[in-house]
Amino acid sequence: MIFYYAIQTVSVASQIALEEAGAVYESRLIDFKTTEQQSKDYLQINPKGRVPALVTDRGIITETPAILAYIAQAFPKARLAPLDDPFLFAKLQDINSYLCSTVHVNHAHKMRGNRWVEDKDAQSKAAMTAKVPKTMHDSFSLIEQEMFIGPWTLGDNFSITDCYIFCISNWLKGDNVEIKEFPLIHDHHLRMKKRPSVQKVMAIHGLN
Amino acid sequence: MIFYYAIQTVSVASQIALEEAGAVYESRLIDFKTTEQQSKDYLQINPKGRVPALVTDRGIITETPAILAYIAQAFPKARLAPLDDPFLFAKLQDINSYLCSTVHVNHAHKMRGNRWVEDKDAQSKAAMTAKVPKTMHDSFSLIEQEMFIGPWTLGDNFSITDCYIFCISNWLKGDNVEIKEFPLIHDHHLRMKKRPSVQKVMAIHGLN
Repeated sequence: MIFYYAIQTVSVASQIALEEAGAVYESRLIDFKTTEQQSKDYLQINPKGRVPALVTDRGIITETPAILAYIAQAFPKARLAPLDDPFLFAKLQDINSYLCSTVHVNHAHKMRGNRWVEDKDAQSKAAMTAKVPKTMHDSFSLIEQEMFIGPWTLGDNFSITDCYIFCISNWLKGDNVEIKEFPLIHDHHLRMKKRPSVQKVMAIHGLN
Repeated sequence: MIFYYAIQTVSVASQIALEEAGAVYESRLIDFKTTEQQSKDYLQINPKGRVPALVTDRGIITETPAILAYIAQAFPKARLAPLDDPFLFAKLQDINSYLCSTVHVNHAHKMRGNRWVEDKDAQSKAAMTAKVPKTMHDSFSLIEQEMFIGPWTLGDNFSITDCYIFCISNWLKGDNVEIKEFPLIHDHHLRMKKRPSVQKVMAIHGLN
Protein backbone atom coordinates (compact mmCIF):
# COMPACT_ATOMS: atom_id res chain seq x y z
CA MET A 1 0.00 0.00 0.00
CA ILE A 2 1.04 3.58 -0.56
CA PHE A 3 -0.17 6.29 1.80
CA TYR A 4 -0.23 9.87 0.51
CA TYR A 5 -0.16 12.46 3.26
CA ALA A 6 0.64 16.09 4.01
CA ILE A 7 2.27 17.53 7.11
CA GLN A 8 -0.02 18.35 10.06
CA THR A 9 -3.22 17.58 8.20
CA VAL A 10 -6.03 15.12 8.85
CA SER A 11 -3.81 12.43 7.32
CA VAL A 12 -2.33 12.08 10.83
CA ALA A 13 -5.44 10.08 11.85
CA SER A 14 -5.09 7.41 9.15
CA GLN A 15 -1.32 7.26 9.56
CA ILE A 16 -1.66 6.44 13.27
CA ALA A 17 -4.25 3.78 12.40
CA LEU A 18 -1.89 2.22 9.84
CA GLU A 19 0.80 2.04 12.52
CA GLU A 20 -1.62 0.58 15.06
CA ALA A 21 -2.64 -2.04 12.49
CA GLY A 22 0.96 -3.05 11.87
CA ALA A 23 0.40 -2.40 8.18
CA VAL A 24 3.29 -2.56 5.72
CA TYR A 25 3.06 0.55 3.57
CA GLU A 26 5.07 3.22 1.84
CA SER A 27 4.53 6.89 2.72
CA ARG A 28 4.60 9.66 0.14
CA LEU A 29 4.60 13.27 1.21
CA ILE A 30 2.47 15.78 -0.71
CA ASP A 31 3.85 19.28 -0.22
CA PHE A 32 1.03 21.75 0.43
CA LYS A 33 3.54 24.64 0.40
CA THR A 34 4.05 24.12 -3.34
CA THR A 35 0.34 23.19 -3.80
CA GLU A 36 1.42 19.73 -4.86
CA GLN A 37 -2.08 18.46 -4.01
CA GLN A 38 -3.28 20.25 -7.15
CA SER A 39 -0.49 18.86 -9.37
CA LYS A 40 -1.43 16.83 -12.41
CA ASP A 41 0.27 13.76 -10.97
CA TYR A 42 -1.51 13.91 -7.63
CA LEU A 43 -4.91 14.63 -9.16
CA GLN A 44 -4.52 11.23 -10.86
CA ILE A 45 -4.37 9.73 -7.36
CA ASN A 46 -7.08 11.90 -5.79
CA PRO A 47 -9.08 14.13 -8.18
CA LYS A 48 -10.31 16.07 -5.16
CA GLY A 49 -6.79 17.41 -4.61
CA ARG A 50 -6.83 16.51 -0.93
CA VAL A 51 -5.09 14.15 1.46
CA PRO A 52 -5.04 11.44 2.62
CA ALA A 53 -5.24 8.83 -0.12
CA LEU A 54 -4.50 5.15 0.35
CA VAL A 55 -3.44 3.18 -2.71
CA THR A 56 -4.23 -0.53 -2.39
CA ASP A 57 -3.76 -3.36 -4.88
CA ARG A 58 -7.49 -3.06 -5.67
CA GLY A 59 -7.61 0.71 -6.12
CA ILE A 60 -7.50 4.00 -4.27
CA ILE A 61 -9.45 4.97 -1.15
CA THR A 62 -9.89 8.58 0.01
CA GLU A 63 -11.77 10.28 2.87
CA THR A 64 -10.68 9.66 6.45
CA PRO A 65 -13.75 7.75 7.74
CA ALA A 66 -13.54 5.38 4.75
CA ILE A 67 -9.78 4.82 5.12
CA LEU A 68 -10.08 4.26 8.88
CA ALA A 69 -12.85 1.67 8.55
CA TYR A 70 -10.90 -0.01 5.75
CA ILE A 71 -7.79 -0.30 7.92
CA ALA A 72 -9.87 -1.82 10.73
CA GLN A 73 -11.51 -4.32 8.36
CA ALA A 74 -8.35 -5.20 6.42
CA PHE A 75 -6.37 -5.82 9.64
CA PRO A 76 -8.96 -7.48 11.89
CA LYS A 77 -6.33 -8.92 14.26
CA ALA A 78 -5.47 -5.37 15.36
CA ARG A 79 -9.02 -5.04 16.75
CA LEU A 80 -9.36 -1.39 15.77
CA ALA A 81 -13.17 -1.44 15.47
CA PRO A 82 -16.12 -3.53 16.76
CA LEU A 83 -16.41 -5.33 13.43
CA ASP A 84 -18.80 -8.05 14.62
CA ASP A 85 -21.32 -5.69 16.19
CA PRO A 86 -23.27 -3.52 13.70
CA PHE A 87 -24.64 -1.28 16.44
CA LEU A 88 -21.25 -0.52 18.03
CA PHE A 89 -19.71 -0.11 14.59
CA ALA A 90 -22.48 2.40 13.84
CA LYS A 91 -21.68 4.31 17.04
CA LEU A 92 -18.06 4.49 15.90
CA GLN A 93 -19.09 5.67 12.46
CA ASP A 94 -21.52 8.16 14.02
CA ILE A 95 -18.57 9.89 15.71
CA ASN A 96 -16.31 9.64 12.65
CA SER A 97 -19.03 11.20 10.49
CA TYR A 98 -19.46 14.02 12.98
CA LEU A 99 -15.70 14.63 12.95
CA CYS A 100 -15.52 14.83 9.15
CA SER A 101 -18.75 16.67 8.40
CA THR A 102 -18.91 19.09 11.33
CA VAL A 103 -15.68 19.37 13.36
CA HIS A 104 -13.19 19.31 10.47
CA VAL A 105 -15.46 21.69 8.55
CA ASN A 106 -15.62 24.07 11.51
CA HIS A 107 -11.82 24.13 11.64
CA ALA A 108 -11.54 24.62 7.88
CA HIS A 109 -13.41 27.93 8.07
CA LYS A 110 -10.27 29.46 9.58
CA MET A 111 -7.95 28.78 6.65
CA ARG A 112 -10.07 27.58 3.75
CA GLY A 113 -13.01 29.97 3.65
CA ASN A 114 -12.42 30.37 -0.09
CA ARG A 115 -13.96 26.94 -0.54
CA TRP A 116 -17.35 28.43 0.26
CA VAL A 117 -17.12 32.14 -0.51
CA GLU A 118 -15.23 34.37 -2.95
CA ASP A 119 -15.63 37.54 -0.91
CA LYS A 120 -12.42 38.24 1.05
CA ASP A 121 -14.26 40.16 3.77
CA ALA A 122 -16.45 37.15 4.42
CA GLN A 123 -13.38 34.92 4.77
CA SER A 124 -11.68 37.43 7.04
CA LYS A 125 -10.70 37.42 10.68
CA ALA A 126 -13.78 39.54 11.33
CA ALA A 127 -16.12 36.98 9.76
CA MET A 128 -15.60 33.26 9.09
CA THR A 129 -12.32 32.98 10.95
CA ALA A 130 -13.81 34.73 13.97
CA LYS A 131 -16.31 32.00 14.78
CA VAL A 132 -13.85 29.08 14.63
CA PRO A 133 -12.93 29.15 18.36
CA LYS A 134 -16.64 29.00 19.26
CA THR A 135 -17.60 26.25 16.79
CA MET A 136 -14.59 24.12 17.76
CA HIS A 137 -15.29 24.69 21.45
CA ASP A 138 -18.93 23.72 21.00
CA SER A 139 -17.98 20.59 19.03
CA PHE A 140 -15.51 19.38 21.64
CA SER A 141 -17.97 20.11 24.44
CA LEU A 142 -20.43 17.84 22.64
CA ILE A 143 -17.81 15.14 22.10
CA GLU A 144 -16.76 15.30 25.76
CA GLN A 145 -20.30 15.29 27.15
CA GLU A 146 -22.24 13.13 24.71
CA MET A 147 -19.89 10.85 22.78
CA PHE A 148 -16.76 10.05 24.78
CA ILE A 149 -17.23 7.04 27.08
CA GLY A 150 -13.69 6.55 28.43
CA PRO A 151 -11.00 5.55 28.92
CA TRP A 152 -11.09 5.31 25.13
CA THR A 153 -13.69 7.02 23.00
CA LEU A 154 -15.90 3.94 22.72
CA GLY A 155 -15.14 2.58 26.18
CA ASP A 156 -12.65 -0.11 27.15
CA ASN A 157 -11.39 -0.82 23.63
CA PHE A 158 -9.05 1.40 21.64
CA SER A 159 -10.36 2.08 18.13
CA ILE A 160 -9.81 4.05 14.92
CA THR A 161 -11.99 6.80 16.39
CA ASP A 162 -9.30 7.44 18.99
CA CYS A 163 -6.83 8.13 16.17
CA TYR A 164 -9.27 10.57 14.57
CA ILE A 165 -10.20 12.47 17.76
CA PHE A 166 -6.53 12.73 18.71
CA CYS A 167 -5.66 14.13 15.28
CA ILE A 168 -8.30 16.85 15.48
CA SER A 169 -7.60 17.62 19.14
CA ASN A 170 -4.12 18.69 17.98
CA TRP A 171 -5.79 21.57 16.13
CA LEU A 172 -7.47 23.07 19.21
CA LYS A 173 -4.48 25.15 20.33
CA GLY A 174 -4.18 26.83 16.91
CA ASP A 175 -7.92 27.42 16.97
CA ASN A 176 -7.63 29.23 20.32
CA VAL A 177 -9.45 26.54 22.25
CA GLU A 178 -8.00 25.34 25.56
CA ILE A 179 -8.00 21.52 25.55
CA LYS A 180 -7.90 21.46 29.36
CA GLU A 181 -11.51 22.64 29.36
CA PHE A 182 -12.34 19.09 28.28
CA PRO A 183 -10.83 16.83 30.97
CA LEU A 184 -11.67 13.54 29.23
CA ILE A 185 -10.31 14.71 25.87
CA HIS A 186 -7.23 16.19 27.53
CA ASP A 187 -6.49 12.98 29.41
CA HIS A 188 -7.07 11.01 26.20
CA HIS A 189 -4.69 13.32 24.35
CA LEU A 190 -1.92 12.76 26.90
CA ARG A 191 -2.40 8.98 26.88
CA MET A 192 -2.41 8.87 23.08
CA LYS A 193 0.96 10.61 23.05
CA LYS A 194 2.45 7.72 25.00
CA ARG A 195 1.61 5.18 22.28
CA PRO A 196 4.54 4.23 19.99
CA SER A 197 2.29 4.63 16.92
CA VAL A 198 1.48 8.20 17.87
CA GLN A 199 5.08 9.07 18.74
CA LYS A 200 6.24 7.81 15.34
CA VAL A 201 3.60 9.78 13.44
CA MET A 202 4.02 12.94 15.55
CA ALA A 203 7.74 12.90 14.71
CA ILE A 204 7.00 12.67 10.97
CA HIS A 205 4.69 15.67 11.26
CA GLY A 206 6.99 17.74 13.49
CA LEU A 207 4.35 17.75 16.25
CA ASN A 208 4.99 17.43 19.96
CA MET B 1 -36.91 1.11 15.63
CA ILE B 2 -38.01 4.73 15.60
CA PHE B 3 -36.84 7.00 12.81
CA TYR B 4 -36.82 10.75 13.48
CA TYR B 5 -36.91 12.85 10.33
CA ALA B 6 -37.75 16.28 8.96
CA ILE B 7 -39.39 17.17 5.68
CA GLN B 8 -37.11 17.52 2.63
CA THR B 9 -33.91 17.10 4.61
CA VAL B 10 -31.07 14.59 4.36
CA SER B 11 -33.26 12.18 6.33
CA VAL B 12 -34.73 11.23 2.92
CA ALA B 13 -31.60 9.11 2.25
CA SER B 14 -31.92 6.93 5.36
CA GLN B 15 -35.69 6.68 4.99
CA ILE B 16 -35.32 5.24 1.48
CA ALA B 17 -32.71 2.80 2.77
CA LEU B 18 -35.05 1.67 5.56
CA GLU B 19 -37.75 1.02 2.95
CA GLU B 20 -35.30 -0.83 0.70
CA ALA B 21 -34.24 -2.97 3.67
CA GLY B 22 -37.83 -3.91 4.45
CA ALA B 23 -37.29 -2.64 7.98
CA VAL B 24 -40.17 -2.41 10.43
CA TYR B 25 -39.98 1.02 12.02
CA GLU B 26 -42.03 3.91 13.28
CA SER B 27 -41.54 7.39 11.80
CA ARG B 28 -41.65 10.55 13.88
CA LEU B 29 -41.67 13.93 12.21
CA ILE B 30 -39.58 16.75 13.69
CA ASP B 31 -40.99 20.11 12.62
CA PHE B 32 -38.21 22.47 11.55
CA LYS B 33 -40.76 25.29 11.11
CA THR B 34 -41.26 25.39 14.88
CA THR B 35 -37.54 24.60 15.49
CA GLU B 36 -38.59 21.35 17.13
CA GLN B 37 -35.08 20.01 16.49
CA GLN B 38 -33.90 22.32 19.29
CA SER B 39 -36.69 21.30 21.69
CA LYS B 40 -35.72 19.81 25.04
CA ASP B 41 -37.39 16.52 24.14
CA TYR B 42 -35.60 16.12 20.82
CA LEU B 43 -32.21 17.13 22.20
CA GLN B 44 -32.57 14.07 24.45
CA ILE B 45 -32.69 12.00 21.24
CA ASN B 46 -30.01 13.90 19.34
CA PRO B 47 -28.03 16.51 21.31
CA LYS B 48 -26.83 17.93 17.98
CA GLY B 49 -30.37 19.11 17.24
CA ARG B 50 -30.31 17.62 13.77
CA VAL B 51 -32.01 14.88 11.81
CA PRO B 52 -32.04 12.00 11.12
CA ALA B 53 -31.80 9.89 14.27
CA LEU B 54 -32.50 6.17 14.42
CA VAL B 55 -33.54 4.73 17.76
CA THR B 56 -32.70 1.04 18.08
CA ASP B 57 -33.13 -1.33 21.02
CA ARG B 58 -29.40 -0.87 21.75
CA GLY B 59 -29.34 2.93 21.55
CA ILE B 60 -29.49 5.87 19.17
CA ILE B 61 -27.55 6.32 15.93
CA THR B 62 -27.13 9.69 14.18
CA GLU B 63 -25.26 10.90 11.07
CA THR B 64 -26.36 9.68 7.64
CA PRO B 65 -23.26 7.60 6.70
CA ALA B 66 -23.45 5.77 10.04
CA ILE B 67 -27.19 5.12 9.77
CA LEU B 68 -26.90 3.94 6.16
CA ALA B 69 -24.09 1.46 6.92
CA TYR B 70 -26.02 0.26 9.96
CA ILE B 71 -29.12 -0.42 7.89
CA ALA B 72 -27.02 -2.37 5.37
CA GLN B 73 -25.36 -4.42 8.12
CA ALA B 74 -28.51 -4.99 10.18
CA PHE B 75 -30.48 -6.17 7.12
CA PRO B 76 -27.88 -8.16 5.17
CA LYS B 77 -30.49 -9.99 3.09
CA ALA B 78 -31.39 -6.71 1.39
CA ARG B 79 -27.84 -6.56 -0.02
CA LEU B 80 -27.54 -2.81 0.33
CA ALA B 81 -23.73 -2.77 0.61
CA PRO B 82 -20.76 -5.00 -0.30
CA LEU B 83 -20.45 -6.22 3.29
CA ASP B 84 -18.02 -9.07 2.57
CA ASP B 85 -15.52 -6.97 0.62
CA PRO B 86 -13.60 -4.40 2.71
CA PHE B 87 -12.26 -2.65 -0.39
CA LEU B 88 -15.65 -2.19 -2.06
CA PHE B 89 -17.20 -1.22 1.26
CA ALA B 90 -14.46 1.40 1.58
CA LYS B 91 -15.27 2.73 -1.90
CA LEU B 92 -18.91 3.07 -0.81
CA GLN B 93 -17.90 4.83 2.38
CA ASP B 94 -15.50 7.06 0.43
CA ILE B 95 -18.47 8.43 -1.52
CA ASN B 96 -20.73 8.67 1.54
CA SER B 97 -18.02 10.60 3.41
CA TYR B 98 -17.63 12.98 0.47
CA LEU B 99 -21.38 13.54 0.40
CA CYS B 100 -21.58 14.36 4.12
CA SER B 101 -18.36 16.35 4.54
CA THR B 102 -18.23 18.24 1.23
CA VAL B 103 -21.46 18.14 -0.79
CA HIS B 104 -23.96 18.54 2.05
CA VAL B 105 -21.71 21.23 3.56
CA ASN B 106 -21.59 23.08 0.23
CA HIS B 107 -25.38 23.08 0.11
CA ALA B 108 -25.67 24.18 3.74
CA HIS B 109 -23.85 27.43 2.99
CA LYS B 110 -27.00 28.65 1.25
CA MET B 111 -29.32 28.47 4.25
CA ARG B 112 -27.20 27.79 7.31
CA GLY B 113 -24.28 30.20 7.02
CA ASN B 114 -24.88 31.20 10.63
CA ARG B 115 -23.29 27.92 11.64
CA TRP B 116 -19.92 29.29 10.60
CA VAL B 117 -20.19 33.08 10.74
CA GLU B 118 -22.11 35.67 12.77
CA ASP B 119 -21.75 38.45 10.22
CA LYS B 120 -24.96 38.76 8.18
CA ASP B 121 -23.16 40.21 5.17
CA ALA B 122 -20.91 37.16 5.03
CA GLN B 123 -23.96 34.88 5.08
CA SER B 124 -25.69 36.95 2.42
CA LYS B 125 -26.67 36.33 -1.17
CA ALA B 126 -23.61 38.34 -2.17
CA ALA B 127 -21.24 36.11 -0.20
CA MET B 128 -21.71 32.55 1.08
CA THR B 129 -24.98 31.92 -0.71
CA ALA B 130 -23.50 33.16 -3.99
CA LYS B 131 -20.99 30.36 -4.33
CA VAL B 132 -23.42 27.48 -3.68
CA PRO B 133 -24.32 26.91 -7.36
CA LYS B 134 -20.62 26.65 -8.23
CA THR B 135 -19.63 24.38 -5.35
CA MET B 136 -22.62 22.08 -5.93
CA HIS B 137 -21.92 22.02 -9.68
CA ASP B 138 -18.26 21.18 -9.06
CA SER B 139 -19.18 18.43 -6.60
CA PHE B 140 -21.64 16.76 -8.96
CA SER B 141 -19.16 17.03 -11.84
CA LEU B 142 -16.69 15.12 -9.71
CA ILE B 143 -19.28 12.52 -8.70
CA GLU B 144 -20.33 12.05 -12.35
CA GLN B 145 -16.79 11.85 -13.71
CA GLU B 146 -14.81 10.15 -10.95
CA MET B 147 -17.15 8.21 -8.67
CA PHE B 148 -20.27 7.04 -10.49
CA ILE B 149 -19.75 3.70 -12.25
CA GLY B 150 -23.27 2.95 -13.50
CA PRO B 151 -25.96 1.84 -13.82
CA TRP B 152 -25.87 2.25 -10.03
CA THR B 153 -23.30 4.32 -8.22
CA LEU B 154 -21.05 1.35 -7.43
CA GLY B 155 -21.79 -0.58 -10.62
CA ASP B 156 -24.26 -3.42 -11.11
CA ASN B 157 -25.50 -3.54 -7.52
CA PHE B 158 -27.86 -1.04 -5.94
CA SER B 159 -26.58 0.23 -2.59
CA ILE B 160 -27.15 2.69 0.24
CA THR B 161 -25.00 5.19 -1.66
CA ASP B 162 -27.71 5.37 -4.34
CA CYS B 163 -30.17 6.47 -1.68
CA TYR B 164 -27.76 9.19 -0.51
CA ILE B 165 -26.85 10.53 -3.97
CA PHE B 166 -30.53 10.59 -4.94
CA CYS B 167 -31.42 12.53 -1.80
CA ILE B 168 -28.82 15.21 -2.46
CA SER B 169 -29.52 15.36 -6.20
CA ASN B 170 -33.00 16.55 -5.23
CA TRP B 171 -31.38 19.72 -3.90
CA LEU B 172 -29.72 20.71 -7.17
CA LYS B 173 -32.72 22.54 -8.61
CA GLY B 174 -33.05 24.75 -5.55
CA ASP B 175 -29.31 25.39 -5.69
CA ASN B 176 -29.61 26.60 -9.31
CA VAL B 177 -27.77 23.64 -10.76
CA GLU B 178 -29.21 21.87 -13.80
CA ILE B 179 -29.16 18.12 -13.18
CA LYS B 180 -29.26 17.43 -16.92
CA GLU B 181 -25.66 18.63 -17.12
CA PHE B 182 -24.79 15.32 -15.46
CA PRO B 183 -26.27 12.63 -17.73
CA LEU B 184 -25.40 9.69 -15.46
CA ILE B 185 -26.77 11.37 -12.34
CA HIS B 186 -29.86 12.52 -14.23
CA ASP B 187 -30.57 9.04 -15.55
CA HIS B 188 -29.96 7.64 -12.05
CA HIS B 189 -32.37 10.20 -10.61
CA LEU B 190 -35.13 9.19 -13.02
CA ARG B 191 -34.61 5.46 -12.37
CA MET B 192 -34.59 6.00 -8.62
CA LYS B 193 -37.99 7.69 -8.88
CA LYS B 194 -39.45 4.47 -10.28
CA ARG B 195 -38.57 2.45 -7.18
CA PRO B 196 -41.49 1.87 -4.77
CA SER B 197 -39.26 2.81 -1.81
CA VAL B 198 -38.49 6.18 -3.35
CA GLN B 199 -42.09 6.84 -4.34
CA LYS B 200 -43.24 6.14 -0.79
CA VAL B 201 -40.63 8.45 0.76
CA MET B 202 -41.08 11.19 -1.86
CA ALA B 203 -44.81 11.27 -1.03
CA ILE B 204 -44.06 11.66 2.69
CA HIS B 205 -41.79 14.62 1.90
CA GLY B 206 -44.09 16.25 -0.65
CA LEU B 207 -41.47 15.81 -3.37
CA ASN B 208 -42.07 14.87 -6.97
